[in-house]
Amino acid sequence: MSHDSRVAALDSLLEDAGLDAVLATKDASIAYLTGFWGLQMERFFGVTVRKGGEGALIAPSLDRDAVAAAPTGLEKALYDAAKGNGLSTLYETFGSAKRIGVEEDHFIWARAKELTSAGYELVPASDLIMELRAAKDAEEIAAVKHACAQIIAVYEEVWADLKVGDSEADVNAKAAYSLARRGGAHPGPHILFGAHAGDPHGSPGSRTLQEGDVIVADIAAQFDGYWGDMTRVAHAGTPSDWAAKAWDIVKEAYDDAVAATMVGNTARDVDHAQRVIVEAHPEIGACLHGAGHAIGTEIHEPPFLVATSETPLREGMIFTVEPGIYNSEKGGIRLEDDILVAADGPVNLSPSALELRVIE
Amino acid sequence: MSHDSRVAALDSLLEDAGLDAVLATKDASIAYLTGFWGLQMERFFGVTVRKGGEGALIAPSLDRDAVAAAPTGLEKALYDAAKGNGLSTLYETFGSAKRIGVEEDHFIWARAKELTSAGYELVPASDLIMELRAAKDAEEIAAVKHACAQIIAVYEEVWADLKVGDSEADVNAKAAYSLARRGGAHPGPHILFGAHAGDPHGSPGSRTLQEGDVIVADIAAQFDGYWGDMTRVAHAGTPSDWAAKAWDIVKEAYDDAVAATMVGNTARDVDHAQRVIVEAHPEIGACLHGAGHAIGTEIHEPPFLVATSETPLREGMIFTVEPGIYNSEKGGIRLEDDILVAADGPVNLSPSALELRVIE
Repeated sequence: MSHDSRVAALDSLLEDAGLDAVLATKDASIAYLTGFWGLQMERFFGVTVRKGGEGALIAPSLDRDAVAAAPTGLEKALYDAAKGNGLSTLYETFGSAKRIGVEEDHFIWARAKELTSAGYELVPASDLIMELRAAKDAEEIAAVKHACAQIIAVYEEVWADLKVGDSEADVNAKAAYSLARRGGAHPGPHILFGAHAGDPHGSPGSRTLQEGDVIVADIAAQFDGYWGDMTRVAHAGTPSDWAAKAWDIVKEAYDDAVAATMVGNTARDVDHAQRVIVEAHPEIGACLHGAGHAIGTEIHEPPFLVATSETPLREGMIFTVEPGIYNSEKGGIRLEDDILVAADGPVNLSPSALELRVIE
Repeated sequence: MSHDSRVAALDSLLEDAGLDAVLATKDASIAYLTGFWGLQMERFFGVTVRKGGEGALIAPSLDRDAVAAAPTGLEKALYDAAKGNGLSTLYETFGSAKRIGVEEDHFIWARAKELTSAGYELVPASDLIMELRAAKDAEEIAAVKHACAQIIAVYEEVWADLKVGDSEADVNAKAAYSLARRGGAHPGPHILFGAHAGDPHGSPGSRTLQEGDVIVADIAAQFDGYWGDMTRVAHAGTPSDWAAKAWDIVKEAYDDAVAATMVGNTARDVDHAQRVIVEAHPEIGACLHGAGHAIGTEIHEPPFLVATSETPLREGMIFTVEPGIYNSEKGGIRLEDDILVAADGPVNLSPSALELRVIE
């Protein structure tokens, strides 16, 4: 689907949503609608789509070359970020529109206040934009699968190289280098050892791999605009009883959650499928997060597979399914694949061996 | 200054600001006040400081290990992000406080609306928090200097390796690897060749270095919580007349802007010092951005050295000073160092050769 077709599809939703225009501000939404990837930092970037399908890409003149190259039929409205905050340029792109949908989970309060003071009525519209972004077309599905294939190749290198005595910092630096050489943007390996792997968001550091450590290797990167995100686990030497038991629990939770990733279920159903299994084993560890998140042009995007979400799963959605169990003393086990909700059931876009690999 | 001393210093500002409490939500502000670095994604994290100096670090239970290790005397309030959005936990940390300062340039509109609906009055407080964060103490200055020293070492490797035929993707991947191996988090090399260097935010790609290309190498990474950010330039073969002229312009703009980075001047004065020189040469290229930005626990933090900022420079502030000139056909030249506003004048925290290096 071309970028301009997506703009037209978004326009077709505005009437029912009662909006005069919608303003997309997330990097990933801007890229989805225009093909332009910016580097926002403190500067304002956005895409305005007015009812009728006209609109604009608004960006600092700093990004003029990339804006000029963006494959979009929308107007391109540049402003000088050293001389203003871009909002007067934004207002020009609104035309007579007054009731504006914004991505409420991204738009900052300072800008919301300015728009309100300028007479615009803001309406939450993240769901509206995600209604389009959530269901991936064949080209997008292929892009996620391609990203996963690159990550799978990096795992082979990680497992082949890893040995007792290696530091987390070195192992992660090498994996990031391999991802980047393959064209991966924002390479985010997150490979943790032993008790440190009991912290699902621990930062790789100077810890070295010891005999008896579990290894949780979460590897993600963005290729050609689309993310892959996987987790595999290993053990330095013969797995301990704890690790073997934790593996069995998480593998069962993974199988059930993947099976539940289908049309007819809601996000909470997938979470429930893993949670009921992981939470039954508090003596092994804790269930610290939901079943996963949608993935595409963002590494984490809505819908989220959490206990509070009644969002129905639709064909074309792609989710990480990533149950885990965590023990602050012994470490963690997590398994993660990227699962497509297809007409006939779940399809694994990151197929590769699922095993508790032993590092000798 | 300990994290708890910073909390006390923030508390001492609340009375005059007419606030019952302040809520910090930027990763860097949370780390500044508590030593905790989170991974926010879609989940809520914050630090509440109530008048009187009590308060809490609020984070998902996912991050329980890192929260437990955080060197803060504040309460630690965890919530299960798979079962709720954390705001009810946040409200408990407010106690009877109703008038709450928030970081308006980070806090998302969805959460602002929820807090307002729950009866809290929100007040912009980014300036209040930055009043503390902006002036760095000796330990912080040493941390930025250390980060720059690592980056300077990476430049030596980049220049020693670089040769005609290398691809941007490879050169950037290697530089990122070197930064990561040295302990750099979020390694962000941004090394561009030829016309591509005319885009200050271009993404490194498959372009290979050609004889006659200018090379703009912007290298940044965070070490032990503090960023360094530098730019150096080179030329493949004898510099063209355009490159030599652009270099002279930018070097003059750099010298004048660095000299202006002193107590008694405002942010706009520093911007003006470079702008008046760069803008005088439209035949060479365009002035596409301000003179720079403050740097510390964030790579870009306020104050920004732009034409619209009347913020006075204070002792202990650290800024990137980074004038540049850009030409979409010929490329760009940018020079960037990290400059401390010291009592006796500007101090360069990233001292290393400033030259238009020739790659043979």
